[in-house]
Amino acid sequence: MGLLDIIDFKKGNGLVTAIAQDAATGEILMVAHMNEESLRRTLETGEAVYWSRSRGLWHKGQESGNTQRVLELRTDCDGDAILLKVEQRGGAACHTGKRSCFFRFRTDDVWGDDGVQVFDPEKVYKK
Amino acid sequence: MGLLDIIDFKKGNGLVTAIAQDAATGEILMVAHMNEESLRRTLETGEAVYWSRSRGLWHKGQESGNTQRVLELRTDCDGDAILLKVEQRGGAACHTGKRSCFFRFRTDDVWGDDGVQVFDPEKVYKK
Repeated sequence: MGLLDIIDFKKGNGLVTAIAQDAATGEILMVAHMNEESLRRTLETGEAVYWSRSRGLWHKGQESGNTQRVLELRTDCDGDAILLKVEQRGGAACHTGKRSCFFRFRTDDVWGDDGVQVFDPEKVYKK
Repeated sequence: MGLLDIIDFKKGNGLVTAIAQDAATGEILMVAHMNEESLRRTLETGEAVYWSRSRGLWHKGQESGNTQRVLELRTDCDGDAILLKVEQRGGAACHTGKRSCFFRFRTDDVWGDDGVQVFDPEKVYKK
């Protein structure tokens, strides 16, 4: 079956949810969106290309160097979410410089933060 | 900080993306949505409660018995996605009876299916 027989871009007005998971550790790195073009670019380039409402087509990591090599691409039962198993180059997925975007956890009615700081965003994004 | 100082329900018109991950294996089980009420119920009950556009407040697994015990709740850098690390009761998260909703993978321009069938949905949902 072709790409568009399975992926349902209609339900989300042209977008699907895209999750990046570290292929080696299973850690969830980030969640973003894809449109059809970004999915095609992802398949063509072998690197994660998302769709951002603010910046448009977004080849993840082109500025910071922290690109994501896609080792496996999956979709869910109703085709409105994509799971990418990736090798995270540079070791950090988050624009904060942390390894994963999911660095905040809820415990005893407060939020904790156990994020692993990999780079300093002030240095990386001010080049 | 309080729940609503961190979770941004506004951007998604009252909804955030919610990802369920098997706490033991790291496998991504499913993706759904939460509104504020479903997040509060999740925290109160310790079980995943989602928001479905078709069925409203959705205490996952109440019909099939495949509830999700929440062991850890995280949010991402911009607070519009929630990650639940869960114990999947009954061993299956998907309405198809498979363990994970992400049973389809893309390889060589075709879709494969390596889903693990845990229950027969015709039997479970026709009780």
